[in-house]
Amino acid sequence: MSLGRIMIEHYLDNSATTKVSEESAKTALYMMTAEYGNPSSLHKKGLSAELMINDAKDVIADSLKVDSDEIYFTSGSTESNNLVVFGVANSKKREGKKIVTTAYEHSSVIGACKRLEDDGFEVIYLTPDKNDAVSEKAFEDAVDENTILVCAMAVNNETGTILDIERIGKAIKRKNKNVHFHCDGVQAYGKIPLKPKKWGVDTLCVSSHKVHGPKGVGALYIKKGTKITPLLYGGEQQKKLRPGTEAAPMIVAFSTAVSEFDLLKNYEHAKKLNDYIKSELAKIDDVTINSSENALPYIVNISVKGIKSETMLHHLELDGIYVSSSSACSKGKKSYVLKALDLPDDIIDTSLRISFSKYNDTSDVDAFITSLKQGIATLAKIK
Amino acid sequence: MSLGRIMIEHYLDNSATTKVSEESAKTALYMMTAEYGNPSSLHKKGLSAELMINDAKDVIADSLKVDSDEIYFTSGSTESNNLVVFGVANSKKREGKKIVTTAYEHSSVIGACKRLEDDGFEVIYLTPDKNDAVSEKAFEDAVDENTILVCAMAVNNETGTILDIERIGKAIKRKNKNVHFHCDGVQAYGKIPLKPKKWGVDTLCVSSHKVHGPKGVGALYIKKGTKITPLLYGGEQQKKLRPGTEAAPMIVAFSTAVSEFDLLKNYEHAKKLNDYIKSELAKIDDVTINSSENALPYIVNISVKGIKSETMLHHLELDGIYVSSSSACSKGKKSYVLKALDLPDDIIDTSLRISFSKYNDTSDVDAFITSLKQGIATLAKIK
Repeated sequence: MSLGRIMIEHYLDNSATTKVSEESAKTALYMMTAEYGNPSSLHKKGLSAELMINDAKDVIADSLKVDSDEIYFTSGSTESNNLVVFGVANSKKREGKKIVTTAYEHSSVIGACKRLEDDGFEVIYLTPDKNDAVSEKAFEDAVDENTILVCAMAVNNETGTILDIERIGKAIKRKNKNVHFHCDGVQAYGKIPLKPKKWGVDTLCVSSHKVHGPKGVGALYIKKGTKITPLLYGGEQQKKLRPGTEAAPMIVAFSTAVSEFDLLKNYEHAKKLNDYIKSELAKIDDVTINSSENALPYIVNISVKGIKSETMLHHLELDGIYVSSSSACSKGKKSYVLKALDLPDDIIDTSLRISFSKYNDTSDVDAFITSLKQGIATLAKIK
Repeated sequence: MSLGRIMIEHYLDNSATTKVSEESAKTALYMMTAEYGNPSSLHKKGLSAELMINDAKDVIADSLKVDSDEIYFTSGSTESNNLVVFGVANSKKREGKKIVTTAYEHSSVIGACKRLEDDGFEVIYLTPDKNDAVSEKAFEDAVDENTILVCAMAVNNETGTILDIERIGKAIKRKNKNVHFHCDGVQAYGKIPLKPKKWGVDTLCVSSHKVHGPKGVGALYIKKGTKITPLLYGGEQQKKLRPGTEAAPMIVAFSTAVSEFDLLKNYEHAKKLNDYIKSELAKIDDVTINSSENALPYIVNISVKGIKSETMLHHLELDGIYVSSSSACSKGKKSYVLKALDLPDDIIDTSLRISFSKYNDTSDVDAFITSLKQGIATLAKIK
């Protein structure tokens, strides 16, 4: 809706990134201008920044029910996923050269795996079943004594499909107790409880900018005693596993955002928005819902018959409504996630992802539905 | 100086990290809360963040007199140095397996080089001459037809020693025109002009948090057409050379700090502080100046006879004065930089680095000198 020159924004692309919360942004500002010491400096100004990073570590650790010294900070989950895939492949290459993952993992897992294929590793990309999920049975069947690493995301970023990480963890460890189990928790974090210890997960990554913290920082849980070869070499920071001056303002601001988590309340809120948008979408012909029934309510993937994703996306943005055509990381390319779900091309080419945050309300859904209907009525159809 | 409970701080550790400038911090805040879109998103909210990143790229490129599409953003110079060392080693390994660098490069260059030695690369670590520098002759002598990479820092982080990158560049390219020349420009950036194109440099890295921008972001110049194997795989960001959601708030805030550069004015200011501190230090027995005459005026490395670095550092911090004992990245370890300069142990063990920024003035020097004198008079001496 446009009020003169002021456009009211309806940001419904929270799986791509989120607005930084006021408190989190304030924390970053404070760290940048007051607590600006180098956490590795020996003097009080450094120590003070180090203590704040330690507190941040406690907050993140607590949110995952793990120990503080099992938390490492990276520049984000692309780095975390690469660190785990390459780091485990390197440290375990004498035990085997097989990796098992899904065909719809995040591009940073798939990308690192593809690179390892060039180096002689065998990678199995499991395709989702009719429920859009990959079952523990599929993982169990794929894992053998030669398998060193399994990667599975807790929630898919384009459809919201939830994988049962606990059952997958148990199944693969039953088959091969030495296998390293990595979970990409990015889209699940702050939305459903993540319990790496209970789930038998060895590493799990989460990202700040998906949970109302700043971009450029992520946390990686590494179970005590796990061997991972670093990607970076240099100073003594983070037990040499991830050297480089810690990005203290972002790290501490990230922890502020995490301390604002209210999983239950926000889940209920997302569920209500999800129910509401689905009831409204049901009234519109030509709309198919691609997300499965039991997907995370924060994400709704739909297709609009005959209207290309980008055409509709740009129509919606004129009304200040922001959704995505597929993952932001693949900018405009056909979604390999939806391809992995074996959806027909016309569904993939017309897909849109709506993703909620705690800052959305029904007015955002109303604006979206109104604009979507106008788009369906006026936009050129694919022949 | 302490006024009741309020301690006036004298931050003289600007080579470790700097205070974020007010404008830079404001920019980060604005990006986090208003321009929070994912730069890879196709909608306007994403495009807007992308355009701001492009503007930031222009600013950084302009400061280095290079083209915008030769600038890549990383999480900082530890990542940039690792990316270059590993990336060049990988892309050129068929041409040769020899690397030439200095014995006092930053730990992220040395660390990556040591790792490559494990993989069969030969690395030559040139030791500085009597002027604390490494001459172009030393580089030229070390480079042969098997050499694929040369790394040289423009300014040393512990002593301020300036290397003549232009002459080194010419000398090594004369010897082997295919050698990749990488310059670590972190301590020189914003202080002396960096001219990678004129200097025959193929890659050059700079860091935000050393120039009053936020921590967690750096820029890497890569000459057009240069082949470097990425460290990270994933999305399409940054021409796939460095995937992952760009840390837009930090990137744009970094460029704000760079747009505030005033090299000449700040150099003159640092020179005055340098002259002043040296004239005051000259009046104190037991103080040796380790930085050479023609070192960068921003950095003064000294030793105080008989008083361990850390003892003096903690004495100074009680008066709100922050200096460092060696590089922050090596937290408390004996400085390998000063060892490379072949200084005796008693000089190394008692060394302090004072490093200025544009925010310092003579009152900081006065406070330092007063507290240093008190320390010399009262602290326990090493026997």
